[in-house]
Amino acid sequence: MKLILDLDTGIDDALAIAYALGSPDAELVGITGTYGNVTVEQGVANSRRLLEILGAPGIPVLPGIGHPWGKREFVRKDASRFIHGDNGVGGVDIGAPEPQFPADREEAIAFIADQVRLIGEDLTIVPTGALTTIAEAMKRHPEVARAHIVLMGGALTVPGNVSAVAEANISQDPDAADYVFRHGENVTMVGLDVTLQTLLTTAHTSLWRELGTVAAATYADMVDYYIGAYATMSPDLGGCGLHDPLAVAVALDPTLVTTLDTNLKVDLGGRTIGDEARLSDPVKNTYVAVGVEANRFVGELMARTLRLFDTK
Amino acid sequence: MKLILDLDTGIDDALAIAYALGSPDAELVGITGTYGNVTVEQGVANSRRLLEILGAPGIPVLPGIGHPWGKREFVRKDASRFIHGDNGVGGVDIGAPEPQFPADREEAIAFIADQVRLIGEDLTIVPTGALTTIAEAMKRHPEVARAHIVLMGGALTVPGNVSAVAEANISQDPDAADYVFRHGENVTMVGLDVTLQTLLTTAHTSLWRELGTVAAATYADMVDYYIGAYATMSPDLGGCGLHDPLAVAVALDPTLVTTLDTNLKVDLGGRTIGDEARLSDPVKNTYVAVGVEANRFVGELMARTLRLFDTK
Repeated sequence: MKLILDLDTGIDDALAIAYALGSPDAELVGITGTYGNVTVEQGVANSRRLLEILGAPGIPVLPGIGHPWGKREFVRKDASRFIHGDNGVGGVDIGAPEPQFPADREEAIAFIADQVRLIGEDLTIVPTGALTTIAEAMKRHPEVARAHIVLMGGALTVPGNVSAVAEANISQDPDAADYVFRHGENVTMVGLDVTLQTLLTTAHTSLWRELGTVAAATYADMVDYYIGAYATMSPDLGGCGLHDPLAVAVALDPTLVTTLDTNLKVDLGGRTIGDEARLSDPVKNTYVAVGVEANRFVGELMARTLRLFDTK
Repeated sequence: MKLILDLDTGIDDALAIAYALGSPDAELVGITGTYGNVTVEQGVANSRRLLEILGAPGIPVLPGIGHPWGKREFVRKDASRFIHGDNGVGGVDIGAPEPQFPADREEAIAFIADQVRLIGEDLTIVPTGALTTIAEAMKRHPEVARAHIVLMGGALTVPGNVSAVAEANISQDPDAADYVFRHGENVTMVGLDVTLQTLLTTAHTSLWRELGTVAAATYADMVDYYIGAYATMSPDLGGCGLHDPLAVAVALDPTLVTTLDTNLKVDLGGRTIGDEARLSDPVKNTYVAVGVEANRFVGELMARTLRLFDTK
């Protein structure tokens, strides 16, 4: 399977990259940049540098739209700074990426549309931040609506994490998310319903550390920071939520989750909820993950990362 | 199977009574009265009179608690008056019930606890209004928490009907509902997720009318009023929601719905949502109906009511 990741990189986004590169059955054709955990610019720099560290510097990273629909700028939340650190990777010095020709934002949108046309059924797009670039690509190039999309975001059967009703990614651009849920023909939502059931602890990161490689140490440092933020924020959880890598894992192996077929809308500034106007519509376009084989997923994550980090 | 219905009768409660009496595999051992669509007093009078019309005057009807926990009174909503009519049965003159010895509210609670002890596994309680009486019974008699409960109320994957987040029955007494979801060991929630997919129209009520019996005419008149209220309130729905009878039907035949196993809490003044503190708890005590075989259910309802009304 071929993957495009649309990332706001971010520590769990970094894990999403590692999961994709560590999966023998996945080919990462490109990363597009969105905003949320960090700005597009910071996220793109982080993605590029992480690809270099993981031995895959040739994969294109293209910045997408940097602010919500109808707004002129993106203001980073204090909570994002706390959870992911100032530089988005827990304050870990991962260095600056190799200089590249500057890409404009049209390129990310055109790239997505081109790959959808070129690859077709075998492509899955995995957005893990604000959905502005994906929605804009869908609006300008309607064929993008037919693509398989497995997104991290939303909360259907549990409360939100930025408010009682809203999850962070959806709340960054509720209009764009609503557009994706109404127009996307094959959308899988991997939200807080399942990602808060999949946890990593320092017992896991110490296994990486024992490998003694740069990649292993970098990831252990980043994720230890993230685990610390979670320990402060959600002490009862007992680890850090594996949001973004779970979306990649579900794209590659849908049997990791059980889903509820539904038609969603976004209301209340970022709530994902069934669209009552389409409740009796026999056509359902969204598959919401409501159950997850958490232990199997964490095992798959550890297998992939241990293999990948061992050689870098 | 033996049933106790806890009703705020109400037009769809009237259909719940008919569904139970029309089911050869069900024995209605009693009705307890709650509030919501109408006051306890009005609901109890309606239930008694409907039992007489349906040829089952001997079934006990016991009033329960008449107001929410922590409040002194129940104020009926204008919307309830509009949907169910001033007298709760669409303004249809169903007459006054035979006079009875007055029952105090302790009797409903003791009755529920006694039946749970006496009948055990073969008993299912079906609450279709405010959950105050059920929660109070559970609090005073912890064995009630072990009873099978199939309640009409709540909305997990769709918006509420009294606010964007809250369904009417739950919002009447959110604390009591929260208590039931936290303490009940075997609770099935039949909420708006499924009940708004099950509709009756005047095409159905005209089939009753053709029977020419008092029961058939009474139910046709009541439900035609209810369909009219829905036509004003929710013109896109194309019929009236069969909330309460669906809960009875699911109690008797759980295969009518698909369920999501979860642990719920009530927040935001009446929202039913997954309790994040019990998200990874392997023990789930609530089964939320998220899909329904709507046509099969409506067929079962028509079969039972046509048979029942034909002889009364």
